[in-house]
Amino acid sequence: MDRTIDLNSDLGESFGAWTLGDDAAMLRLVTSANVACGFHAGDGSTMLETCRLAAQNGVAVGAHVSYRDLAGFGRRAMDVAPAELHAEVLYQLAALSGIARTAGTAVTYVKPHGALYNRIVADRSQSDAVVRAVADFDPSLAVLGLAGSEVARSAETAGLRFVREAFVDRGYLADGTLVPRGDHGAVLSAHDGIAARAVRLAVDGEVTAADGTDIRVEVDSLCVHGDTPGAVAMAAAVRDALAAAGVRMASF
Amino acid sequence: MDRTIDLNSDLGESFGAWTLGDDAAMLRLVTSANVACGFHAGDGSTMLETCRLAAQNGVAVGAHVSYRDLAGFGRRAMDVAPAELHAEVLYQLAALSGIARTAGTAVTYVKPHGALYNRIVADRSQSDAVVRAVADFDPSLAVLGLAGSEVARSAETAGLRFVREAFVDRGYLADGTLVPRGDHGAVLSAHDGIAARAVRLAVDGEVTAADGTDIRVEVDSLCVHGDTPGAVAMAAAVRDALAAAGVRMASF
Amino acid sequence: MDRTIDLNSDLGESFGAWTLGDDAAMLRLVTSANVACGFHAGDGSTMLETCRLAAQNGVAVGAHVSYRDLAGFGRRAMDVAPAELHAEVLYQLAALSGIARTAGTAVTYVKPHGALYNRIVADRSQSDAVVRAVADFDPSLAVLGLAGSEVARSAETAGLRFVREAFVDRGYLADGTLVPRGDHGAVLSAHDGIAARAVRLAVDGEVTAADGTDIRVEVDSLCVHGDTPGAVAMAAAVRDALAAAGVRMASF
Amino acid sequence: MDRTIDLNSDLGESFGAWTLGDDAAMLRLVTSANVACGFHAGDGSTMLETCRLAAQNGVAVGAHVSYRDLAGFGRRAMDVAPAELHAEVLYQLAALSGIARTAGTAVTYVKPHGALYNRIVADRSQSDAVVRAVADFDPSLAVLGLAGSEVARSAETAGLRFVREAFVDRGYLADGTLVPRGDHGAVLSAHDGIAARAVRLAVDGEVTAADGTDIRVEVDSLCVHGDTPGAVAMAAAVRDALAAAGVRMASF
Repeated sequence: MDRTIDLNSDLGESFGAWTLGDDAAMLRLVTSANVACGFHAGDGSTMLETCRLAAQNGVAVGAHVSYRDLAGFGRRAMDVAPAELHAEVLYQLAALSGIARTAGTAVTYVKPHGALYNRIVADRSQSDAVVRAVADFDPSLAVLGLAGSEVARSAETAGLRFVREAFVDRGYLADGTLVPRGDHGAVLSAHDGIAARAVRLAVDGEVTAADGTDIRVEVDSLCVHGDTPGAVAMAAAVRDALAAAGVRMASF
Repeated sequence: MDRTIDLNSDLGESFGAWTLGDDAAMLRLVTSANVACGFHAGDGSTMLETCRLAAQNGVAVGAHVSYRDLAGFGRRAMDVAPAELHAEVLYQLAALSGIARTAGTAVTYVKPHGALYNRIVADRSQSDAVVRAVADFDPSLAVLGLAGSEVARSAETAGLRFVREAFVDRGYLADGTLVPRGDHGAVLSAHDGIAARAVRLAVDGEVTAADGTDIRVEVDSLCVHGDTPGAVAMAAAVRDALAAAGVRMASF
Repeated sequence: MDRTIDLNSDLGESFGAWTLGDDAAMLRLVTSANVACGFHAGDGSTMLETCRLAAQNGVAVGAHVSYRDLAGFGRRAMDVAPAELHAEVLYQLAALSGIARTAGTAVTYVKPHGALYNRIVADRSQSDAVVRAVADFDPSLAVLGLAGSEVARSAETAGLRFVREAFVDRGYLADGTLVPRGDHGAVLSAHDGIAARAVRLAVDGEVTAADGTDIRVEVDSLCVHGDTPGAVAMAAAVRDALAAAGVRMASF
Repeated sequence: MDRTIDLNSDLGESFGAWTLGDDAAMLRLVTSANVACGFHAGDGSTMLETCRLAAQNGVAVGAHVSYRDLAGFGRRAMDVAPAELHAEVLYQLAALSGIARTAGTAVTYVKPHGALYNRIVADRSQSDAVVRAVADFDPSLAVLGLAGSEVARSAETAGLRFVREAFVDRGYLADGTLVPRGDHGAVLSAHDGIAARAVRLAVDGEVTAADGTDIRVEVDSLCVHGDTPGAVAMAAAVRDALAAAGVRMASF
């Protein structure tokens, strides 16, 4: 058994006087940190501090780029024209990249956030714009997203490495897509056997869907959430279970 | 006569639907472009386009960093703590630097904008914070500012190159400082012999102060404004007069 | 002939150092001013000054509410949840209403702006949220929008007065909807007989569509744009033609 | 013993996805709520919800107006020109006032926030601008601030009621001013006898300063903070002690 998996989490999502999540604790558990770049969360100080902590913990840094929507935390889909989206992603990626370098580390991948993440599962025009920004900035960067999505195809076309992500605490439908937020079974809690699901995803590439079907999920990275009460405990449980199953955890 | 001088201007100060100045025309006249980085003006698209035009025209690109104040265009002094200011300058500098690289050019200097420019003439705590951000990001970058100011001393202490700026369209007091905005003679207009002042500054390092005294002004770069009606004509007149006087124009 | 029509325009769309349009000139021509409320344009000073000018010219004041999107000028559709949209519209409406009162006038209607205007033509969930904000704030206010749209139905259901708007400088399709922006014939220019179209819309409720068909358009208010070069001249031409045709111009 | 005192707290300081403090608990304890208006914290939804809870609990609503500085939470002093400050205060006050009315209550006073609060203790130009905005909007509103400050004089000159505030958890100097934040003894904690200090302030108008001197403090309202861990417990202790001492708690 020599399976290796990445463990990623959305971090650096404080802003000014407002704090969110326990980044210091999460950075001792995950192998990749998706760091907010100022458009849905994150200011210069938060970005710098998060990158420093990531460097200290040997955690990879990714640019968690978003629509420009602080008030909505980047959770509201926006009809942004491709040229604008390209420039806005480039701006965020460049800002975090320079800050990461100053903190003694480097941005190695890009993971779109929230509504942008969801939109580019199916919107090729926006996924192309995001991928073009990454490729223009640095074609050696990877893109982290949902397997089988439009952004995966955009990345492939552009020659960028695409890293496939699965969610340990989200329900799946039989067709491999996520149970929509708001529907029953969309978000799983601790007693739903999340740690065991994580191990099965990492080792077998399988998960039991909401209708009881066992489905295959290609996965290079498992996402654990960091912004809810109990997030740290859940991430620790996932990490322990993976270790116990002999799965090596490392960034892609 | 082999005097060389830089000609800089504040550009890229549009934002979204709002445009300011005629950047395309100015970029055919100046040798250094101070490009807004999103905090007082400038969005991703504007920054990218301005950098592309600068690259095409062989114009050097500087980061025109500012307090975070879109509504006030960065013209309102703010008591920002040094650690925050350091991070906010770093954020802007990193964003523009990455965009410039993507546009085929590079940021070679930093010029603080508006109220921040004025504040760090005398506020050593803030000038140190700005300079530390530049040094942390890339110690080969120059800082453009007012000769004899605190920021000049901060740069010197940090081992950064400091480029001394004079203003062709601002009145000077006998002590070498600028006539405060709002006072009579603060801002000069075309018929005040601006082109001749520019030549004298570049060739002799001298200007006639408001009280008639001739004073010495050490200068490596002349600032011409780009955001007023007549700005392009004035910059062209300055450029023509410098050329006629045998002054070579090139970035520092 | 005793036809009366309203002439409305989007005004107060400056922000901080950026100015847009010639509001002072437009306020001498129109009868209703759609005043930006800070979410796509407009700051406190601009809103106060625009309301003062409207009061001096006897022009009605409407709240030009928008998605929260300064960088996109409110032109990017957003999936805002109804409860949030309700609160954001309420915030803008309240802010302008209090400022208008301080300036000696009053907000008498609400006209959604840009992408929000377009979205609530067909999105009943968002149109209900907008109308509910208006009704909660002051049920005596009118809503200005496109005839036959979802927002018209929302207003009717809520018991609010709905004022039907037509565009003097936009092309129409045979089904009464606008030629989409970007398509040929979407935006008409001066030599397209805009003044004559305005008169025909006001007097006969008719316009010639892009395919040559004559169609009926129910209209209480004609929208003239204020933010383009030539806007003032075009508005003046429309006003003169309406006056010459004996049409009285007054707010609804 | 028939002493009456107001108990005020800064509330509604969440923004979008970020929450701050336990407003529901605090609104069961205080008699006046200083509600953020969107410039340092607070969005439409938060303002509406806070006003509704205040109405349900019979708590007075005040406009907690601020410099426009979300990233700095309004804690960074800004050199805002009086005319701009007037308009920005007016905007915030109008927005909250309309929202409060929609929630079934009303704004009855204005308390400047953070850096603006501190600035107008001594800056008459800015204090006049703030007071003029209040007077222009509604001269029946009160202004809440520090006794003996410039804003008190501005309010008096403008004929506005001024309500004098003292802090139960801040240290005082012998001259009646606050121990500066950052200095030893600036912020007191639970075991410093805060409840007893509150009673003595309310009943006798006295407090022991940092140097041991007993000083007089004229006070109409006691400020209790709501944004720290233990804030609710401290406010409850203050409330209980005041009640036990026979002090009636009610808004001014």
